[in-house]
Amino acid sequence: MATHKLLLLAGDGIGPEVMAEVKRVAAWLDQAGLASFAIEEDLVGGCAYDAHGAAISEDAMVRAKAADAVLLGAVGGPKWASVPYEARPEAGLLRLRKDLQLFANLRPAICYPALADASSLKREVVEGLDILIVRELTGGVYFGEPKTIIDLGNGQKRAIDTQVYDTYEIERIAAVAFELARTRRNKVTSSEKHNVMKSGVLWKEVVTALHQRSYKDVELEHNLADSLAMQLVRWPKQYDVIVTDNLFGDILSDIAAMLTGSLGMLPSASLGAADPVTGKRAALYEPVHGSAPDIAGKGIANPIAMIGSLAMALRYSFNQGEVADRIDQAIAGVLASGKRTGDIAGPGTETIGTQDMGKAIIAEL
Amino acid sequence: MATHKLLLLAGDGIGPEVMAEVKRVAAWLDQAGLASFAIEEDLVGGCAYDAHGAAISEDAMVRAKAADAVLLGAVGGPKWASVPYEARPEAGLLRLRKDLQLFANLRPAICYPALADASSLKREVVEGLDILIVRELTGGVYFGEPKTIIDLGNGQKRAIDTQVYDTYEIERIAAVAFELARTRRNKVTSSEKHNVMKSGVLWKEVVTALHQRSYKDVELEHNLADSLAMQLVRWPKQYDVIVTDNLFGDILSDIAAMLTGSLGMLPSASLGAADPVTGKRAALYEPVHGSAPDIAGKGIANPIAMIGSLAMALRYSFNQGEVADRIDQAIAGVLASGKRTGDIAGPGTETIGTQDMGKAIIAEL
Ligand SMILES: CC(C)[C@H](C(=O)O)[C@@H](O)C(=O)O
Ligand SMILES: CC(C)[C@H](C(=O)O)[C@@H](O)C(=O)O
Repeated sequence: MATHKLLLLAGDGIGPEVMAEVKRVAAWLDQAGLASFAIEEDLVGGCAYDAHGAAISEDAMVRAKAADAVLLGAVGGPKWASVPYEARPEAGLLRLRKDLQLFANLRPAICYPALADASSLKREVVEGLDILIVRELTGGVYFGEPKTIIDLGNGQKRAIDTQVYDTYEIERIAAVAFELARTRRNKVTSSEKHNVMKSGVLWKEVVTALHQRSYKDVELEHNLADSLAMQLVRWPKQYDVIVTDNLFGDILSDIAAMLTGSLGMLPSASLGAADPVTGKRAALYEPVHGSAPDIAGKGIANPIAMIGSLAMALRYSFNQGEVADRIDQAIAGVLASGKRTGDIAGPGTETIGTQDMGKAIIAEL
Repeated sequence: MATHKLLLLAGDGIGPEVMAEVKRVAAWLDQAGLASFAIEEDLVGGCAYDAHGAAISEDAMVRAKAADAVLLGAVGGPKWASVPYEARPEAGLLRLRKDLQLFANLRPAICYPALADASSLKREVVEGLDILIVRELTGGVYFGEPKTIIDLGNGQKRAIDTQVYDTYEIERIAAVAFELARTRRNKVTSSEKHNVMKSGVLWKEVVTALHQRSYKDVELEHNLADSLAMQLVRWPKQYDVIVTDNLFGDILSDIAAMLTGSLGMLPSASLGAADPVTGKRAALYEPVHGSAPDIAGKGIANPIAMIGSLAMALRYSFNQGEVADRIDQAIAGVLASGKRTGDIAGPGTETIGTQDMGKAIIAEL
């Protein structure tokens, strides 16, 4: 059995706590002979800044490039509110995305039936929800130049960010969305603001052309980003796969995740292009939730999204879909048995901590 | 009594139908001696393109500048999907905003108790909701240059949009938000993406400095735009006034409107700076909803947001708050009596059309 080189970057806030449960599950899979891991660990985010003065060290970058997959916890927190812009915790995550060329961010939003009541939306609106946001992750306003603040004198400054998209960047992310739609309900909704942005005009044009050329069997619709945000709140089940740019994807995927009421449950994958010879692709897996500084260190964070990220790595990077299924089933089993961390517990329900949730999932495995 | 010069730009889709009810209400107010209007009408959007080849004519722009207030219905529809970019229906609205320097867009999101069940969110999450989104409307990525598509050859194009904000633009919109918060629950939430955008860095810096300098009595908090979108879905009542840029405001205000379940009920105001001598400010009022081409011409659109826009004009432009109150009360009365257009009717409820809703509001007045 191939040994998978995993780099764990636990990061800040609740990152280390939830990553500890991934280690627990990985060790169990190893012992049970279900998978074989060679695990390294390093720092990212605020903790990396504290240690090295940068949000990720060159050494950690080398390890990330050498790994078969990176698992990341979360970055950021109030402690680093005033570090220099280039060294802020998020810069570590952004550098990983950019340098590993992780252009395809897959963010599933699934509403677990057992948790539908935790949503702020009515049960019938979200029960059974299963949508996938495919977000472009290495382009757009996140990385475009110029990105600067100019001093105009007279107490006036001018801030500039640049949204840039090239045809090939739109094409490759749209192809990912169409391919994934074929394995699901065969529908893609593409979202931009072509009514005010030139990048939206090009986006729509390229997606439409690719659809005509290679994916006519997939249903394609276009929704303006503001309208899509609204429709996600109104009736999210009308969607299957949503493909959109880096900034809209940031917002829309957070909305979609919150609809489910299961934010602490949702993993995500960020993938590079497959190497034409080896088929290998760079990959980073992380929970959709953030570093949650308010509950960090208390042992109460929900580790499921982080453990789900390991399952996603097994599925997308290691071709071990059956083992991934087993983990997902164990998670579902634990939920069905009524075990809950605080974030997904209804009022008056008994809750368990991070470690007990990790142990319960292993018991179920 | 001063006569108010009103320019009505009904626009496309359901625009003309709902604007007809504004005319009905204005005529009644005139007759009743409660207000005096001198009304002109012109075209904007797709219908203006059909008539003049531009989304708004020079003539209409002259009239808009001369008016005390502009009331706009809605622009756009599939009919104009392939007109040239510069002449697309939205260009008329954008030119009005830019040339009249309507930098402050006020979008209240109010959940009418009688309509709370129309929301996709649980009643307890939205009942009594009353938040105000203050959106910057003449800057940012909507208008920044360069905004272009370049042909790179080899079948590749590059699209560029530019997000630009100067200190004074952020300062004046933040001041509007702080002032309005003082008349409400005294809390402002400022939203940007300072973790990835330089405009977000400057935005946060300027809002914080203005707060320190002149509005220490108002509570100020900062929320990243993705996180705010999520929190709006989770528990919107934590907010009072939200201030944000043009693009984030577009999306966030649509989410907030949809939360209420009362999209057809919500008016909005777009205001310029007050003239230092006369105190007069340019103003445009429009419903939050769009042109709804699917139901246009059927006589079933909800005219309340459009009539509410007239009430907002009376309040913000004409200093006739009591008359505005009377209209708002008449609307509430009609709702309390159970009358509903299709968009706000529960399943199995009887509905009335656009004209009957207009007449019912006048009967209540
Ligand atoms: C941490 C931050 C830079 C990041 C982003 O904006 O992309 C986060 O919000 C996300 O969605 O992964
Ligand atoms: C019609 C369109 C240009 C406009 C915008 O994006 O500002 C609309 O969505 C709005 O919010 O008023």
